[in-house]
Amino acid sequence: MGERPSSKDCAKACRVDPGAPFSLKDFDPDDRRFFEDEDDAKDSWRDDSEEIDKLQDKLFAEGKRALLIVLQGIDCAGKGGTIRRVFNATGPRGVRVAAFGKPTDRELSHDYLWRVHQVVPPRGFIGVFDRSHYEDVLIVKVRELAPADAVEKRYDQINAFEKHLVENDVAIVKFMLHMSKEEQARRLQDRLDTPKKRWKFNPSDLEERKLWDDYAAAYEEALQRCSTKHAPWHVVPSDNKERRSAIVARIVRGALEDMDPKYPDTGYKPEDYVIS
Amino acid sequence: MGERPSSKDCAKACRVDPGAPFSLKDFDPDDRRFFEDEDDAKDSWRDDSEEIDKLQDKLFAEGKRALLIVLQGIDCAGKGGTIRRVFNATGPRGVRVAAFGKPTDRELSHDYLWRVHQVVPPRGFIGVFDRSHYEDVLIVKVRELAPADAVEKRYDQINAFEKHLVENDVAIVKFMLHMSKEEQARRLQDRLDTPKKRWKFNPSDLEERKLWDDYAAAYEEALQRCSTKHAPWHVVPSDNKERRSAIVARIVRGALEDMDPKYPDTGYKPEDYVIS
Repeated sequence: MGERPSSKDCAKACRVDPGAPFSLKDFDPDDRRFFEDEDDAKDSWRDDSEEIDKLQDKLFAEGKRALLIVLQGIDCAGKGGTIRRVFNATGPRGVRVAAFGKPTDRELSHDYLWRVHQVVPPRGFIGVFDRSHYEDVLIVKVRELAPADAVEKRYDQINAFEKHLVENDVAIVKFMLHMSKEEQARRLQDRLDTPKKRWKFNPSDLEERKLWDDYAAAYEEALQRCSTKHAPWHVVPSDNKERRSAIVARIVRGALEDMDPKYPDTGYKPEDYVIS
Repeated sequence: MGERPSSKDCAKACRVDPGAPFSLKDFDPDDRRFFEDEDDAKDSWRDDSEEIDKLQDKLFAEGKRALLIVLQGIDCAGKGGTIRRVFNATGPRGVRVAAFGKPTDRELSHDYLWRVHQVVPPRGFIGVFDRSHYEDVLIVKVRELAPADAVEKRYDQINAFEKHLVENDVAIVKFMLHMSKEEQARRLQDRLDTPKKRWKFNPSDLEERKLWDDYAAAYEEALQRCSTKHAPWHVVPSDNKERRSAIVARIVRGALEDMDPKYPDTGYKPEDYVIS
């Protein structure tokens, strides 16, 4: 087993530098530099997921801050599998997953951040967004579901919204699961071929796939304009499931370690109480 | 390793028979008949929790029904630990935990089931209530937080509410974690003595403990009047954490097996699609 990269090194290698030029082409979806092999990656996310559990316990005990994880990626990029590997050790009591699908009529009668704000994790919790408000500058832009000038304003609005959350004790870390077009083909084929996965297959995914380059451009614009010091974007090589999960786990663990939550001192002393 | 009791045998042994006389005294909180030893119990809940995960995947794929688990028990009875052991394998993507604390002013401005209805699990999900609407006939009754005649009407109201949910595709299984007064003393002492657990200690728990017999009576009345064929109550021996979790896992798995969710046939055939 090789020496594992530090959380900081992982984060730095994947981070989209605020303000700098950025192209997805500079990020290899099959980048293997971080872990020796799959087993090493698996051991790493297992260890980190246990540590994330312990840190969330402290975060909850402290009760002052929350952590919001934003997961984005095209179909089959592995958002669900990442959540399982990184957050099942903490479990449903400490982690709240919000999945954003097509907005309902009621949601559409509000501004696009209305439904998002409602499911921001409360103090003490880790929230995971499975897709997010970024769809409002991704599919909405590609499919022209809102006027172009409205979409254009959203990047700044999103930055302001996220800054507001961070200033109010919700730390934010964002991940784009970066998968190659070839790997998506393999996974779509696998969904078709495997009976217990076939329910996940939707022919509309093939229509989206035809717009691959448009989505790549929309992602590039969103990540460049919305990777900020307070809420950075990370591009995670995602052609391999174990390596992808290990990188996300490293960075999430690092974010929690930076928050450094502590068990509060309630002031109660064992010698002051007799339990009868 | 002894032969494990079937889900049905576990459920039957713990179930409060609808309409029959019932006394908590007939249930031993340290009942050890179900599993040979702690290791056997641990293996059992581990196996069952993996199976629950697989069944929830089918439940989600099917998208037609939900399962609601109600967990009640006095302080230290182990609601949190049960959720971890039984549901972490499924994880936060498939399981939604709702914890019911002291109602907010807004919640109190509505009827007591208003906040409960809002967090009933959607189709495809398992919902776990960490405390529940039963507090409205438990602490509310013991502490006289509502008029006695209003509380008296709640048993039938709760039965009607739960019947409504079951008729609308939300299966319900209820567990009372039954712990002895001596075991609670040990666990409260442990919270005081263990630095990383001390934040959980609250002197108000000692005040509640003084009302032990009143709570036991309130539980007996609630379980007797609200254990129904459609939403049965189970009394789970809970002095031992592994055995307790193993019994809950067995019964939850059995409930899901009875629901028998199936992957849907979407009608899409591999030969009809070329992924290019």
